[in-house]
Amino acid sequence: MIVTLAGGVGAARFLQGLIRVVPQDHVTVIGNVGDDTEFYGLHVSPDLDIVTYTLASLVDPLKGWGFRDDTFQCQQMLQKYGCNTWFNLGDRDLATHIYRTQQLIRGRPLSAVTADIVSALGLNITLLPSTNDLLQTYVVSSTRKMHFQEYMVKLQTRPNVRRVLFKGVETAKPAPKVVQSIMKADGIIICPSNPIVSIGAILAIQGIRSALRDTQAPIVGINPIIAGKTVKGPADKLMKSLGYEPSAIGVARYYKDFLDTLIVDNVDRKLAPTIRSLGIKTVVTQTLMRSMRDKARLARVALSEFKS
Amino acid sequence: MIVTLAGGVGAARFLQGLIRVVPQDHVTVIGNVGDDTEFYGLHVSPDLDIVTYTLASLVDPLKGWGFRDDTFQCQQMLQKYGCNTWFNLGDRDLATHIYRTQQLIRGRPLSAVTADIVSALGLNITLLPSTNDLLQTYVVSSTRKMHFQEYMVKLQTRPNVRRVLFKGVETAKPAPKVVQSIMKADGIIICPSNPIVSIGAILAIQGIRSALRDTQAPIVGINPIIAGKTVKGPADKLMKSLGYEPSAIGVARYYKDFLDTLIVDNVDRKLAPTIRSLGIKTVVTQTLMRSMRDKARLARVALSEFKS
Repeated sequence: MIVTLAGGVGAARFLQGLIRVVPQDHVTVIGNVGDDTEFYGLHVSPDLDIVTYTLASLVDPLKGWGFRDDTFQCQQMLQKYGCNTWFNLGDRDLATHIYRTQQLIRGRPLSAVTADIVSALGLNITLLPSTNDLLQTYVVSSTRKMHFQEYMVKLQTRPNVRRVLFKGVETAKPAPKVVQSIMKADGIIICPSNPIVSIGAILAIQGIRSALRDTQAPIVGINPIIAGKTVKGPADKLMKSLGYEPSAIGVARYYKDFLDTLIVDNVDRKLAPTIRSLGIKTVVTQTLMRSMRDKARLARVALSEFKS
Repeated sequence: MIVTLAGGVGAARFLQGLIRVVPQDHVTVIGNVGDDTEFYGLHVSPDLDIVTYTLASLVDPLKGWGFRDDTFQCQQMLQKYGCNTWFNLGDRDLATHIYRTQQLIRGRPLSAVTADIVSALGLNITLLPSTNDLLQTYVVSSTRKMHFQEYMVKLQTRPNVRRVLFKGVETAKPAPKVVQSIMKADGIIICPSNPIVSIGAILAIQGIRSALRDTQAPIVGINPIIAGKTVKGPADKLMKSLGYEPSAIGVARYYKDFLDTLIVDNVDRKLAPTIRSLGIKTVVTQTLMRSMRDKARLARVALSEFKS
């Protein structure tokens, strides 16, 4: 079993490649729920949905989230009722949130509802939310604290972030099978996602980071920052403002207590010696994924680290 | 102030005529909530929405409910998640239910949320739900008890109804202003709606029927049954199976403790003497509403009863 830790768009694109080279029933994805929030009383799980929609080939390919060719009739009407509409939710996308919310209200855990959605979309992977408990990523600017989605979507990452915090992290427990799957994995891949807020929100849950340290499985990370910049999202910016070097070196330092191998892009070849000096094997290859072929090739590079 | 008691499609069509001859801010509608139910965890108020959508000229004119030209993307997706879809909810329509549910969960009463929706749709009438409490219309067939929407929409009124009951009626209180508006009205109109399940669910709430008996305001009913048949809905069928005569006479008997005048269709002219013998003034005119002109004319006939 290949176990992956995943955020949103970057992870989903990598996973598209992975399921082309590994049967879906051999893939477990531990997904980030720190970005989850409520809109209109509906529980929205952006990262879980990005993963499922992308792997089901239903995602909007340009935006990287939501369903392809979705319409926005419902939200246009919600705007008439005075609701905020800065977080775009398409009509078909809303079905996912309505279904999830209804099931959660009935008392089912997020992991069970997520399994329903995975199956309804025709997938055969195991997608585990990192936790079934409330865990929400907040960022603190010089003036105030805000939910990650407000920072990311509403304010378009403009505020200068001083601090990131995970609300609920003191009590959140890993969802069932999360720790077990890490302990029993044949290999673990940290997807190319934001180390601070996506992977970071998974690592922050008690028991997960220590399982990564304790597991016998080799752990390979794919560096999400190429030449000091992220392909998508604010990881570079966030790392800088929080005092991490926005590069493969900063990522390596952040993961160094559990990471065996870091895959870095050709353009960052010169950083390899420093990463190696942290005790992390470094594989240099093309990490930018332009085509499905790129994605599958990158997956194969990661998997090759598990053959020993 | 003209106060009306209203069910769904028949009432809404009559009210379209009424607001053409009376300023909207002189019209109070006491709406039926007995048909309310939950789909996908969302609170749906079919009759209130039929009234608002119709009066806002947004209703689907053929179906008589839902928004004109609405799409069904969300529900198609909900079907993939295994949800029942026998109750059609369009994408824009869902916004109403999402908004209402969110506001109710926040603790606001249905009457306040309904006022928001009325205003958001550009209307200036007062639409009062009969009650803010739980009241649900059930019908009992020879084999089982079912919610009115299941009988009406899912089973297409096929079961033979032995009994109608209003769940919650023992404790449901009239919503604020319902009884006061009846007591202070200049005239009251019982819209051409199902006497048993639509108007009946309003009359069943403690204090409403007695207010109608006690008020000084003249009360005019518009008979919804023409030549023994309803224009829309199962009123004729229900009345018959419950032992009421499915005609203007049965309606007159059902309302006779408070009704001053019943407007009956030309084709039922021969029933007038029997209705008069019940102590109810009978006005014979065309009650079938084919055009907006018909609706306005019928409204004027009803209003003429208030000039004395």
